[in-house]
Amino acid sequence: MSESRYDWLHDRWVVFAPQRAARPDEFRDRFQPARRPGFTCPFCAGNERETPPAILSLPPSSPRSKQAWQVRVVPNRYPALESLSPLTSARPWGDEGQQTPANSGLDEKIPSPAADLESPISVSPSPQCTRGIHEVIIETPEHLESLTQLAREDAQLVFRAMRQRLTALRANHRLHYAVVFKNVGAAAGASLSHSHSQLISTDFVPPNIRRVSRRLQHFQQQHQTGYFEQALEQELKHGDRLVAHSEFFVAFVPYASALPYFVTILPKTRQPRFEESSDLELADFSEVVQRILLAMESTFAELAYNFILHTSPFDAGGDQAFHWRMEIVPRLTQVAGFEWGTDCYINPVLPEYAAEVLREAMEAGPAQDSPTTLPLLKQRTNSPAVS
Amino acid sequence: MSESRYDWLHDRWVVFAPQRAARPDEFRDRFQPARRPGFTCPFCAGNERETPPAILSLPPSSPRSKQAWQVRVVPNRYPALESLSPLTSARPWGDEGQQTPANSGLDEKIPSPAADLESPISVSPSPQCTRGIHEVIIETPEHLESLTQLAREDAQLVFRAMRQRLTALRANHRLHYAVVFKNVGAAAGASLSHSHSQLISTDFVPPNIRRVSRRLQHFQQQHQTGYFEQALEQELKHGDRLVAHSEFFVAFVPYASALPYFVTILPKTRQPRFEESSDLELADFSEVVQRILLAMESTFAELAYNFILHTSPFDAGGDQAFHWRMEIVPRLTQVAGFEWGTDCYINPVLPEYAAEVLREAMEAGPAQDSPTTLPLLKQRTNSPAVS
Repeated sequence: MSESRYDWLHDRWVVFAPQRAARPDEFRDRFQPARRPGFTCPFCAGNERETPPAILSLPPSSPRSKQAWQVRVVPNRYPALESLSPLTSARPWGDEGQQTPANSGLDEKIPSPAADLESPISVSPSPQCTRGIHEVIIETPEHLESLTQLAREDAQLVFRAMRQRLTALRANHRLHYAVVFKNVGAAAGASLSHSHSQLISTDFVPPNIRRVSRRLQHFQQQHQTGYFEQALEQELKHGDRLVAHSEFFVAFVPYASALPYFVTILPKTRQPRFEESSDLELADFSEVVQRILLAMESTFAELAYNFILHTSPFDAGGDQAFHWRMEIVPRLTQVAGFEWGTDCYINPVLPEYAAEVLREAMEAGPAQDSPTTLPLLKQRTNSPAVS
Repeated sequence: MSESRYDWLHDRWVVFAPQRAARPDEFRDRFQPARRPGFTCPFCAGNERETPPAILSLPPSSPRSKQAWQVRVVPNRYPALESLSPLTSARPWGDEGQQTPANSGLDEKIPSPAADLESPISVSPSPQCTRGIHEVIIETPEHLESLTQLAREDAQLVFRAMRQRLTALRANHRLHYAVVFKNVGAAAGASLSHSHSQLISTDFVPPNIRRVSRRLQHFQQQHQTGYFEQALEQELKHGDRLVAHSEFFVAFVPYASALPYFVTILPKTRQPRFEESSDLELADFSEVVQRILLAMESTFAELAYNFILHTSPFDAGGDQAFHWRMEIVPRLTQVAGFEWGTDCYINPVLPEYAAEVLREAMEAGPAQDSPTTLPLLKQRTNSPAVS
């Protein structure tokens, strides 16, 4: 039977339909694009001239170190946003980022990205020049294709680099928001296979992030506790959606996850800002991330996935009720017309089942058998998920 | 340079970054999955027993007709939703669909999908059994893979079948919403290649559709004219985003389209309900759809795309300010971590450029040369889109 669950955080419904996993599929090999032979990787050690000069290198280079760098942060050579430079004029919608310019006539009205977009303003035919920062975090000098191939200490350096960059960007008064994300595999939007993450920081808070922040604040006012605190309590109580549990973190498949095998990693105590994590917390976090990715990789052949590291928006009030977290989003199914048109999602895998599979993969340890193709299509009949 | 535009309808920002189309791509052949050899197509004439019995066949069968059917609508054998049958009890959140059940305690609270979801209610660990209808519109008895391969009159029958089914579903007082959509190609979520569309009708209005309806109503109240009326006026005035123009319809690439080559087809005068279109309007619409799809197919090799046919929600007030329309969404790029995390989109193709390419393809007529692979990566230097 189908079961619908409400994703409170994003105000949408997710329909779980395990029976749809049994439908015939005429296509195969859909997520295994070929690599171009002879492609020169711009992220490998030795090819540093293929990227702009580094903003940050870790560990800090010393004349004695064999390796020039382990983690390297560079400006994206193909940035999504106009670079924010010292010569940049103030944002067109005012330095406070709160006021809407007074314009009249459809063709001149410019909505402010920082204004209250819950209430309609106008159709805007006047483009903005949005400014920001687009950086690439090159996670290893070797041509490794997964974060799980990094030694534990080297993986920690990756998250330290993110912490250091986010701290610097938050101090820039012209930036209002930043997000760190990772695209792995062509199906997840990657164009390069060398293990890397990206960081985008903008001079406005995306409306959807603003909406989620507001919902979190309202929840806190209504319930005298936070949304994520309640979610955490509930996950620990029920246990059937838990994936991992460490000293500082809990990882689970959210109750109403829109996509199969979606995992959230949440600090156990509320911290709005990722970049205020201690070395001890980062070491623990790094290990949890590697363990979960390894479990996914041992379950799915040629895994494509995104992760998103949410930290609180930079502007005043952004920290209220915000909980930093990482979302790991395997790209096993395609978002289709129904989802695109309605923002409702049909998910063929129940979170409880996905969590069980990932827990088992973690217990079994790294790939003893080679991973199967799309096991979400082979739900076990003895699983409560398909009863 | 990057240019950001505000998508008023969906309250989100789209960053246009043509320079990103030039970035290196290590992967190739990403959207060309192989077909399984020897797969039996359940939609071909002769295999009718592979699907549930038809709900509707067009043209109405007569003993004299050579062909049993041209268009066939069947229940989806793998429905996303629990079927709505006469034995189904009333919806758990009340027959009016407006009240939230009075529950207390996190574990028992059930938000109503029909209630005001703008204000937070609670985390919901109690699933709903969402009911609805999930149908497949088989567009041809032959194994054709595109709507553009259908004769003009046969394509019209497809849209008449949609009209007839939507009319019937709107009369069902337990249904509140319906959407017709099409997934073509594995990259767009299709699992079968035989030309078909789908229809999902639900006993609640998706929150996102409710939000858009509300924004349309507010716009109308504020401006004494509709959002789409203004958009239409603007598109006709500027002309550079126009793709096609017929007796009853205008097709254009929206000002802030989130994905490359996204096209909206809009009736020239406001009509909330697709299913109230006349035969004359449907004939015109069908031709416009075929022409645009043909232009896209002659531009992109192995085109994968979705279309979404939006008609007004069924419940009272749904018609206010609603404009039925079709959105055609080519799936040329992958939605990646940034988009998934923030609901901001990075689009490497400016709407004005996409419209120009499609207009030229339409003038050139059906594929004289074989279509190139991903021409969005080869933006012409003389185009204003990349200046």
